[in-house]
This record gives sequence, structure tokens and C-alpha cells, in this order.
Amino acid sequence: MPDKSFRISRAGADRRPVMLAIAGDSATGKTTVTAGLAAALGPDRCISISADDYHRFDRVERRDKPFTPLHPDCNYIDILEQHLQLLASGRPILKPVYNHSTGRCVRPERIEPNEFIIVHGLLPMYGKLARACFDISVFLDPPEEIRRAWKIQRDTGTRGYSSAQVMAEITAGEAESAEFIHPQRAHADIVVRFAPIPGRSDPPGTPLSAELLLRPTIRQPDLTEVLQPDVTRTIHLRLARDTDGRPVDNLHVHGYRTPEENAVAEKAIWETLGDPHTAAPACLGMVSSEQHSTPLAITQMILLHHLLYGPR
Amino acid sequence: MPDKSFRISRAGADRRPVMLAIAGDSATGKTTVTAGLAAALGPDRCISISADDYHRFDRVERRDKPFTPLHPDCNYIDILEQHLQLLASGRPILKPVYNHSTGRCVRPERIEPNEFIIVHGLLPMYGKLARACFDISVFLDPPEEIRRAWKIQRDTGTRGYSSAQVMAEITAGEAESAEFIHPQRAHADIVVRFAPIPGRSDPPGTPLSAELLLRPTIRQPDLTEVLQPDVTRTIHLRLARDTDGRPVDNLHVHGYRTPEENAVAEKAIWETLGDPHTAAPACLGMVSSEQHSTPLAITQMILLHHLLYGPR
Repeated sequence: MPDKSFRISRAGADRRPVMLAIAGDSATGKTTVTAGLAAALGPDRCISISADDYHRFDRVERRDKPFTPLHPDCNYIDILEQHLQLLASGRPILKPVYNHSTGRCVRPERIEPNEFIIVHGLLPMYGKLARACFDISVFLDPPEEIRRAWKIQRDTGTRGYSSAQVMAEITAGEAESAEFIHPQRAHADIVVRFAPIPGRSDPPGTPLSAELLLRPTIRQPDLTEVLQPDVTRTIHLRLARDTDGRPVDNLHVHGYRTPEENAVAEKAIWETLGDPHTAAPACLGMVSSEQHSTPLAITQMILLHHLLYGPR
Repeated sequence: MPDKSFRISRAGADRRPVMLAIAGDSATGKTTVTAGLAAALGPDRCISISADDYHRFDRVERRDKPFTPLHPDCNYIDILEQHLQLLASGRPILKPVYNHSTGRCVRPERIEPNEFIIVHGLLPMYGKLARACFDISVFLDPPEEIRRAWKIQRDTGTRGYSSAQVMAEITAGEAESAEFIHPQRAHADIVVRFAPIPGRSDPPGTPLSAELLLRPTIRQPDLTEVLQPDVTRTIHLRLARDTDGRPVDNLHVHGYRTPEENAVAEKAIWETLGDPHTAAPACLGMVSSEQHSTPLAITQMILLHHLLYGPR
């Protein structure tokens, strides 16, 4: 591979930001994946934006509406699209702000475009012109039972809901999730599924494995060399067919290997996809401030590679 | 003049809104002039926007800033320009909102472009690209002592300041007003000066007269016929030279004539500039819910004429 310092600048000849969409249903890990990437790139080069800030109604106003925040009509979808276009062409925006703790729409904030822009949320890839703004797009697609556990854990914690309220919200959103959120999966360049491996009974605390569909809609990194069995047993790559029959790379990253094996795998991937002259940023793979996950770290390294070195 | 129903639509072949800027220092009558125009056109055809909603800092944040809201740096001037461009091309915006009563920046609101858009405020004509968005531009330029009286009356009333605070604010803003607000006067198609006529001692409550500079930067209505002395003594038109020496029409509308004379003048102007088949809308000329001013009504009729029939 050609020279590629981790601090390589993408903004030289082309001042347009590199833009990444991370879409998925509520509590699928969007902010966790985003946080590691944003920290690795640093606040001087990367901004992240929540598409959920474009909620049209606050929590009280939504009570008598016939839809949930998963519905495009519950969001300023066209204003989001307009703002993505402005950012993609290097212009600032005045972004609305939705406060998840209070459930209220508050004062907007100015966003200056930066070298890298990550847009995560329920519907960032809903519109065709919005999708056209992104250089890379990701859909997070964990099994429903995993997502529900995550959602209950988060929303009863930081967002002040009861378990019963969260379950009611999940039920209320099922039809809209199927109609509006899930179809974005078909437009993603990479689909990520964090899940336990069926049939295994790993002890509690074992990180989830990850399955990544690497679609040929963008130039995916060539991993055939680094993923020989003697290099790593944590990761497997195999050719597969996508749900529509198209060829696709299917990357499995196991969560149950030993820390030593995981370290070997992360090092091999970072040297291939990241910067061989530096160690991988410690922020990659952090599920929380205490818990590290190799499948998450590998996923983020692949995304980082696209952000830093992907063709424009 | 050709057929011109007051309900004539401007949005036929050309879907772009007709846009009017009304600029001027604090308390120069911008919202009063705007209110009558917006009411005459009706909320289904006309929206009005305050450029002061683009204040970057709230009242508390401004305390330790080295400028006042009159300074472009105290406003999202480039976002205002961006939003004017979007509206001018028929696209919606998510507009910031500044609450003048509380002095706080609050939740933004969605603005759909309409047939007519009036943008009033301190700095709507500050930027070149912002000015390019307007079909007609007005600068309100009353004598400073009139403006101060208006400002004290308003700000100690609806905005909750003391007289001393308002005077301090006026003093604090003098240099910035001269540097940033007043230069917009040079870019206006019409300059309006509401003032008493020097040397007269009219009883209290006499409406102010108006002096309008009608610059040839847009096609001004031909008023030579209607303003013959036998038609009206309330209004005079004379050729003059602008401050830079260019020829300009100088229209005087006297505030001290009798109600009967004023009614004749308003009728003559409305039949020429408005719709001869209908009466002038009663909202024109209202200084408050009780007080009518013929100079204000005539000013608004001229602006309404430009909005409805001016070339694009």
C-alpha cells in the first residue's frame, strides 16, 4: 500500500468533507460506533451529527400524533437533506437540537464543516439526495432481542423511562421501523450485525461477535492476504451472496477468542488498514469506558480506512 | 394601467417568492410597516421574517462580548444569507428564533416560502449575496430623536427594560449603528423618513409626515399624473438629487392635513397603485390598533404596488 500516515489529510485538493452515514433503529449502537471513530480522528478533524436532532415534534407534542420519531413525517427530513447538501459542499449550517434527556427541541447550534463528518441516526439515509451526500454508509442491524436489551438498559438509565415505557415504545415503533428504518439497510455499503454466535454458550461478559457485509458498492479493502488462517483465527472472510443475490464479502469477527489472539488480529488489521507506523488508537473498540470489544474495534478500523483512504 | 386585481397572483410562471427587505436601526418602525403589508396580503400569501432572529448570542451571553446585536459578528450573517438564498429559490428553511421578551435563543421554526416574503431587521441588507435575494429594499431612516423616543416607549413597555437601560443601549450601539446599520441606506431602493415637518407646531397626536426617496434602482411607479395639485394637497412629488448626486424622486406625504383631504389622497393613490375596483385594505396606515397615519398608508401602498406589480 502507498504511504499513508494516520494523520494524512483528506482536505488538500478537495475541500469537501468526507461523509459517513451510520443508520439503524433506536439502540443499535450508532453512537458507540461513532464515538470511537470521532475520538480516533480527533475533534479538530471530525464532527459528528445526530440526524435525530431533526425531530419535528418534542416529546409532549408527539403524544397526540399518529406516528413515532421513526416516521419521516415526525422529522424535518427535507431540512436534514438540505443541511447534508450544504455540509457536503463545505458550507456551515444552523442545526436544530433535540435534547434526549428532556425530550425537548432547543436552541439550534452552528456546525462548521470539517474534514470528516459522521451523521448517525434513525433516518440519515432515507432520502435519495441525502444518500448522495455520503461517501460511505453503514447500517447497524443487530438481532432484535439484542437491540431490545440495549434499549431498555439505555432508556431506563440516561433517558429516564421505565422498562414498561420502553417496551411500549418498541411495540409502537415496530411497523414504522419495518417501513422506514429497515429499508435503509439495502442502501448501505456496509451492514454490521453485532450478535452472539448461535449454538455457543459463552460466559456472561463475552463480547458479541460481528458479522459485516462488505458490499461492492464502494471499493472495499482487500483483506484476503491478512486473513490467512496463520495470521488470525479471530477473523474469517468468505464470499457470500447478498439478500438480493449479488456477490458480497462476509466478514466474521469472533468475540470469544482470548485477549492474546484478539490483540494479534487487531494488530494485523491495523497494520493493513490503518497506519503501520503507529499503534491503533486506544479509543477503538470501547463499548464503554471499561469494556473493550475486538469485533467493534475491527469494524471501526474498516470504517476509518474508508474515511482516510477511500476513493472520493 | 393593465388589468390588475388586488388578488393577482405573482406565483404563476415564476414560482420564486417576491422578496422585500426592510432594514433600519432599532425602533425605526420596521415591524409597523411590515405588519400592515403582511395583513394586506394575508397570511396565505405572505410571510414575514425578522433578521434579528439570527442573533448569535442571547442577552446573558452578550454581557461579556465586545459588541452589541448591531454588529454583524453578533449575528449568524452567513446563515441568514444562506437562508435568504434558499427562500429566494423557493425552498423551506429551519429559521432560528430569538425571543425579544426573554432575550433568549429558542427552538427554531420551519418557514415555508410563500408568494411574498418580507424580511425586516437590523442587517438584512448587510451582505451582497443577501441583497441579491431581494426584489425591493427599504431603509427606514427617521431623525435620531424620533427613533430614541420610539425605542424608549417600546423597550420599557414590551421588552421590560428601564429608561436608563435603553439609553445606555442606544449609547453603546452608536458607533456600530454608524458602521454597519446606516450604510445599508445606500443600497435601498426606497428610503423612508417619518418625521415632523420643521418649523410647524402641530398639536400632539398629529401623525408624522413621511419623506420617501424613490430611487431609480428599480422601476418606480409614475406618480406625476395623480399628484397634480388639484388631485391632492397631502402629497408632493419633486425631482431631487440623492446624497451621491444621482437623480431621485422625492415624495412628501404630509401628516397634518384634515381627515377629508387625507382620504382623498389615499383614494387617489390606491386607485393608481392598488386596485381601483376595491377599497384600500383597512390595515394600511395603522400605527397602532387605534391610530391611523396617512403617510404610513401611502408608504405601504407604494411598497404593495412594487410587491404586486413590480417587474421581476
